[in-house]
Amino acid sequence: MNNYFENIPAIKYEGAESTNPLAFKHYNPKEEIGGKTMEEHLRFAACYWHNFCWDGADVFGAGTFNRPWLAAGNPMERAKQKADVAFSFFEKLGAPFYCFHDIDVAPEGESVNEYIRNLSEMTDVLARKQDETGMKLLWGTANVFSHPRYMSGAATNPNPEIFTRAATQVYHAMNATKTLGGENYVLWGGREGYETLLNTDLKRERQQFGRFMNMVVEHKHKIGFKGLLLIEPKPQEPTKHQYDYDTATVHGFLKEFGLEKEFAVNIEANHATLSGHSFHHEIATAFALDIFGSIDANRGDPQLGWDTDQFPNSVEEMTLICYEILKNGGYTSGGFNFDTKLRRQSLDAEDLFLGHIGGMDTCALGLKKAYEMLSNDILSENVKSRYAEWDSALGRNILEGNMSLASLAEHAQTNGLEPKPVSGKQEGLENYVNRIIYK
Amino acid sequence: MNNYFENIPAIKYEGAESTNPLAFKHYNPKEEIGGKTMEEHLRFAACYWHNFCWDGADVFGAGTFNRPWLAAGNPMERAKQKADVAFSFFEKLGAPFYCFHDIDVAPEGESVNEYIRNLSEMTDVLARKQDETGMKLLWGTANVFSHPRYMSGAATNPNPEIFTRAATQVYHAMNATKTLGGENYVLWGGREGYETLLNTDLKRERQQFGRFMNMVVEHKHKIGFKGLLLIEPKPQEPTKHQYDYDTATVHGFLKEFGLEKEFAVNIEANHATLSGHSFHHEIATAFALDIFGSIDANRGDPQLGWDTDQFPNSVEEMTLICYEILKNGGYTSGGFNFDTKLRRQSLDAEDLFLGHIGGMDTCALGLKKAYEMLSNDILSENVKSRYAEWDSALGRNILEGNMSLASLAEHAQTNGLEPKPVSGKQEGLENYVNRIIYK
Amino acid sequence: MNNYFENIPAIKYEGAESTNPLAFKHYNPKEEIGGKTMEEHLRFAACYWHNFCWDGADVFGAGTFNRPWLAAGNPMERAKQKADVAFSFFEKLGAPFYCFHDIDVAPEGESVNEYIRNLSEMTDVLARKQDETGMKLLWGTANVFSHPRYMSGAATNPNPEIFTRAATQVYHAMNATKTLGGENYVLWGGREGYETLLNTDLKRERQQFGRFMNMVVEHKHKIGFKGLLLIEPKPQEPTKHQYDYDTATVHGFLKEFGLEKEFAVNIEANHATLSGHSFHHEIATAFALDIFGSIDANRGDPQLGWDTDQFPNSVEEMTLICYEILKNGGYTSGGFNFDTKLRRQSLDAEDLFLGHIGGMDTCALGLKKAYEMLSNDILSENVKSRYAEWDSALGRNILEGNMSLASLAEHAQTNGLEPKPVSGKQEGLENYVNRIIYK
Amino acid sequence: MNNYFENIPAIKYEGAESTNPLAFKHYNPKEEIGGKTMEEHLRFAACYWHNFCWDGADVFGAGTFNRPWLAAGNPMERAKQKADVAFSFFEKLGAPFYCFHDIDVAPEGESVNEYIRNLSEMTDVLARKQDETGMKLLWGTANVFSHPRYMSGAATNPNPEIFTRAATQVYHAMNATKTLGGENYVLWGGREGYETLLNTDLKRERQQFGRFMNMVVEHKHKIGFKGLLLIEPKPQEPTKHQYDYDTATVHGFLKEFGLEKEFAVNIEANHATLSGHSFHHEIATAFALDIFGSIDANRGDPQLGWDTDQFPNSVEEMTLICYEILKNGGYTSGGFNFDTKLRRQSLDAEDLFLGHIGGMDTCALGLKKAYEMLSNDILSENVKSRYAEWDSALGRNILEGNMSLASLAEHAQTNGLEPKPVSGKQEGLENYVNRIIYK
Repeated sequence: MNNYFENIPAIKYEGAESTNPLAFKHYNPKEEIGGKTMEEHLRFAACYWHNFCWDGADVFGAGTFNRPWLAAGNPMERAKQKADVAFSFFEKLGAPFYCFHDIDVAPEGESVNEYIRNLSEMTDVLARKQDETGMKLLWGTANVFSHPRYMSGAATNPNPEIFTRAATQVYHAMNATKTLGGENYVLWGGREGYETLLNTDLKRERQQFGRFMNMVVEHKHKIGFKGLLLIEPKPQEPTKHQYDYDTATVHGFLKEFGLEKEFAVNIEANHATLSGHSFHHEIATAFALDIFGSIDANRGDPQLGWDTDQFPNSVEEMTLICYEILKNGGYTSGGFNFDTKLRRQSLDAEDLFLGHIGGMDTCALGLKKAYEMLSNDILSENVKSRYAEWDSALGRNILEGNMSLASLAEHAQTNGLEPKPVSGKQEGLENYVNRIIYK
Repeated sequence: MNNYFENIPAIKYEGAESTNPLAFKHYNPKEEIGGKTMEEHLRFAACYWHNFCWDGADVFGAGTFNRPWLAAGNPMERAKQKADVAFSFFEKLGAPFYCFHDIDVAPEGESVNEYIRNLSEMTDVLARKQDETGMKLLWGTANVFSHPRYMSGAATNPNPEIFTRAATQVYHAMNATKTLGGENYVLWGGREGYETLLNTDLKRERQQFGRFMNMVVEHKHKIGFKGLLLIEPKPQEPTKHQYDYDTATVHGFLKEFGLEKEFAVNIEANHATLSGHSFHHEIATAFALDIFGSIDANRGDPQLGWDTDQFPNSVEEMTLICYEILKNGGYTSGGFNFDTKLRRQSLDAEDLFLGHIGGMDTCALGLKKAYEMLSNDILSENVKSRYAEWDSALGRNILEGNMSLASLAEHAQTNGLEPKPVSGKQEGLENYVNRIIYK
Repeated sequence: MNNYFENIPAIKYEGAESTNPLAFKHYNPKEEIGGKTMEEHLRFAACYWHNFCWDGADVFGAGTFNRPWLAAGNPMERAKQKADVAFSFFEKLGAPFYCFHDIDVAPEGESVNEYIRNLSEMTDVLARKQDETGMKLLWGTANVFSHPRYMSGAATNPNPEIFTRAATQVYHAMNATKTLGGENYVLWGGREGYETLLNTDLKRERQQFGRFMNMVVEHKHKIGFKGLLLIEPKPQEPTKHQYDYDTATVHGFLKEFGLEKEFAVNIEANHATLSGHSFHHEIATAFALDIFGSIDANRGDPQLGWDTDQFPNSVEEMTLICYEILKNGGYTSGGFNFDTKLRRQSLDAEDLFLGHIGGMDTCALGLKKAYEMLSNDILSENVKSRYAEWDSALGRNILEGNMSLASLAEHAQTNGLEPKPVSGKQEGLENYVNRIIYK
Repeated sequence: MNNYFENIPAIKYEGAESTNPLAFKHYNPKEEIGGKTMEEHLRFAACYWHNFCWDGADVFGAGTFNRPWLAAGNPMERAKQKADVAFSFFEKLGAPFYCFHDIDVAPEGESVNEYIRNLSEMTDVLARKQDETGMKLLWGTANVFSHPRYMSGAATNPNPEIFTRAATQVYHAMNATKTLGGENYVLWGGREGYETLLNTDLKRERQQFGRFMNMVVEHKHKIGFKGLLLIEPKPQEPTKHQYDYDTATVHGFLKEFGLEKEFAVNIEANHATLSGHSFHHEIATAFALDIFGSIDANRGDPQLGWDTDQFPNSVEEMTLICYEILKNGGYTSGGFNFDTKLRRQSLDAEDLFLGHIGGMDTCALGLKKAYEMLSNDILSENVKSRYAEWDSALGRNILEGNMSLASLAEHAQTNGLEPKPVSGKQEGLENYVNRIIYK
């Protein structure tokens, strides 16, 4: 199984003129941009789950991919074969990082003990693989949403024993992540929410969830894990309503439980759009709220109402994402993780590479364009001058708390204030962005 | 103009069997339900704006309603005629409350001073009208979104002079509301948001907005206004992105600026659904976050992506809304305000009454059904037993902070925990609700 | 396995006051309404697939239902056990009809021959079951969307051999349907559409699809099948774009290939709303286009963008559906089939009954209310008088083709036509409908 | 008023490196691509309505633009001033075409006669303006949706006198279009649909609509108008449901009334997305159905549920649109009309130019990229080989009608057909498109 990808060469940068589908056109890992290599800027990760744990099934049809390592067999043997295939893919692709859920890499087993043993053994396997290949772990996470026991939530389950089982997984997944040098730890609450309000105690479930999150923080500090703790917002799937709806909602939750310094968000493009926001909005909001952490790079279909997890392919969108990140200082421990699925009809071994190459080139070109925008940051200058009046006496007095509604009303009346609106120049700014992208 | 509605009789309760379109079938104001009259429970308000300031125009066509008080003429005279018509409507309808924006009732004028004079004079007119009719003011608000000066926001405008103009309006509108015995004061930030991130400083605008809200609180306390301050969430209209997206987002904002004890939410059904939630979700969330205040009762069209503001007509939905409100103790100073528009084709004077009668009957019947549900509260009992295990030693230890991820993992391992999921019984609960509604 | 439902009694009608969850409150099969029994009006069917072939899995998690007949084992034995369980359910529920896909009832097998043998053998089993229980087949269909071979379409596949395999299934499924006395035959083109236009020849695929449909018609006539051929429209799932988007689109397709007299539509509520229409719209459109056939009764979630297939529970909506059907003469060979899924958390054997009881009571009460509306059809009278001017000389001349743009323009000019719009009375009509439902 | 744009120079092509906001970067009108100039390929038009008849109002606020020609005054004088400004804009912009509604250019007046006189007089003005400037008319249309009389439809109105008034406008607008050398005539049925099914006779309204359309065709032939008749599909706005929902629906309607050879579609990007389709889908569908005519080029906001009519700015999207058009032979009499609105905050005179420059450059660059794709048409080759088996004996026999379900089933059985699915290569094809755009 080691040789599943034997016909695929290691992917190299060949430049924009290359017509080789199995080469990067824009992603040149060692190329420096503003004092850092592209690899250091972009911090790409490939994921374990969609690439190696999914067989191409959807709600209306069986798996199409025919992956040999997903065939029936001894679970631990299959897990090791899967690791072989995964790392041969990671290595050939040349993304420096990967990400996993506990049960992506280790069989769930039939009991707590078996789960723990399996994860422990597979952690050793992964550590060895990392050593052999130089791959690094961007983040680990625990899947506490797929097993039937989590159907009504993990931390927010009506049954504290199920909470306990989730805590068990998170405990071991955090420990494994630390062991493997993971740079972050992620929580995604796919079943933390409700299907119907008729049987749900919202207030109580929030309390449970808050307590769970605090335990995660306590454990992080206890084991000296240095990476970021990340929450991944998602609005409406698989649960009718999920509590971590979007970045602003997560921020409010963190504030309520005193966690806003302890968690950041892992923003997924397709989750952003399902919540009624743009990807750009979610990134900008996370920076505005000081909780930006990492990105699950993908795209949805603007006409479909579920998570299609397609590979990102819009340089137009990605340029603004990269601009936002660079402007705010770049990633710390986060990165671009491809939480991306092949289309169910993409059967060939090379398709996995083609998807990632497209995604990586999209981000790389976005990065270059964003860097160009920042090198003469007309957008920021424009924003600065747009709000310049807030540095006037009136503006400062307002923000510093020296004015009341009454004193402002008097000021308006005394001065007969008739402020004139000025053009927002949206079309011009949009043209400016396109000028950079297409010059 | 006093006699615009002269052919419409005062609306009376005639019972479910009545076929008189101009009678209530379910709303019987003085009927007692659980120790309060329906009037006291429901606290209905009719609004000034859609009913008396709108001529039936939409984006694609001119006004259809041909309201005489909206014809050209001396603005203050027209405002007084409008008040005459409005109060004759309110009185015949028999809702105890009404609501207004400052510039619904008083002409905006050409200057600050004119605005202040007009509002002051019209406040006297309204006070007199209230005395004459017994109508009460559920809430007042300032319209700081329609004038071109607010096109880029009021509190979040790049220009502090526009912030100042908004503060002037809110100052006078709050004062007028207090003078008129208003039971609440509302803020709706229709232009507080952005059209494009390319020209927007999200962080700065949040600061401006937070400062503005704090000024409102300070002014409330200074003038001794006893009612609730309410924020009305809305997601995507008229501004591409509005900061008060939904209840959870508003709560996070309030927490950030230390305002969560000072503001509650005024939830509108159609705003709820535009934000991707159900009306019920927003109400239940507001109670869970302890910020429930009042309701703008209407409905949207589930296939249309904008605020259609139709009259509520689903008893099925309204029963659950009333159940949620009653279960949590009922309204304090809030109420059901009909933020509702006639369809543009509903030209007849009586149509305004028909719309409100339908809405009021829908709420009234929902109230009765909800009261019946609560008198033997099977839903709450079911919820209580569903979470009963959280009162066990394990559950209490978790919530009281006596357990860590490590101790829970050990507990799971030691006890070989294999908790069994139990049915959520959604279909059965839905049938139960319908049984109450349709028996 | 025969006794999976042994603790569930046969479901009886007990009336609206009954508090027995396992009884009908409104569906009284032998009760006459307007000369037909409720059973004859509603023609309820339960489905094989969601009830007996689905284990509660969703995209994010494993099956929760633990159905013994879905466990590993000899496929034909399992199929027979499944038939035992299904018919014991059908019988206890008391719906007169059921529906199936070929591979719901018979294992797909490893080859064409095995498929044919299995289906033939299971057809005998079903025939026997029908005899034993009195159950009837509302419709059969072939599943040509789940097998990986159909990932790029069945009739619209780029490979004619896959078209041929689909034809093989439809051939045998039609024959089986006829053998079993099925009253209709359904086609649902879940994979007839495209994932990306980049690899799709729309024109060619339409030709293939048109040819396929014509073959179905030819075969129907050849074997003397007397029931309706039905197409089930669906817009966006599982395929990004499906050709049978909605009723109007299907009608256009049928016109193009000369099939509009040969096919009718099987309208599903949740498919209607996913296509941007209301359920009522799709039904009314089908009648307007003379292609109404049958209904897949369920409901979606207005905030979720995929097919949730919940049980119908809105009497408010169903009353208008039933009104539309009754007004147009009722079902011919169609009926209400419950294409409904339990929520994934509804684990109990009784939940399957609760879901159907709720759905059947919803339709039954809707039927009663609709009948009441029709017995004094104020809506139709209102519509008739609204368009009455079309019976004037001008109206008739226009519709009969006696007028041209020129002659109409002259008529307008000569007569100085200034027609006055009249109120559409929407609010009043909505109140009227509620009055019937809630009196 | 002639000098409203006096500070704006005529817009010139300066190339991709230009930083002049008031210059084209990609649109070089006389540059040849494949034997035609860019001007001939793209056939740009600017519109009268959004640019010169709209004051920046939205549903929640007053106009912001302060256009002098929209101020109060003598209507005909204002109309002439508007024409002066419009043509000075058209000329400086350098689009060869413009488009209008009758009442954009001529005041509606108080009577039929006044309308006719006004339109006649303004037709002369426009003719003179066209002569002076060399501008040409891409299409004319009649606005039969804004006046209150059309609130319940024009052709589908319950009152035949309103139908007659609409016919009068269409008659004169068609004649004016012919007089002015218009290359097409458009119909948009903004109010042809229903607000509620409770008062609507769908079947009757379709008949009325079909008759109206046939009159238009008859008049076209009578006056010898040589251009295309175009219908513009739109789904849900301003009417809850519009009959011309999308291209496929329009095609079905045309087939029903025997009009499919007489009408083509004018596809608007934002209407496409509101109907649940992509812009590309609608274009490709129109070609597949042989009813492609023209384009209203704009864009919507993927998170907003109404027609935002923004300027197109995605080269990524427009490349595929241009590819589709070029591949099918290019425009005949249609073109790219900018049915686009400035953002309400874009107050400056130059903003109108900036919006159009961005839109025109987007189309121009899309054209260049599309031409490059076609010069070595890998997509078409791939599609051809993907369906190649349909040229085999089996494929041909199926399409030519030589096979039945029975003979295909036998063929499958005899040959033990087990066709293997092959990869759809979506990710690779998407990468290919990006490679062309970004090389």
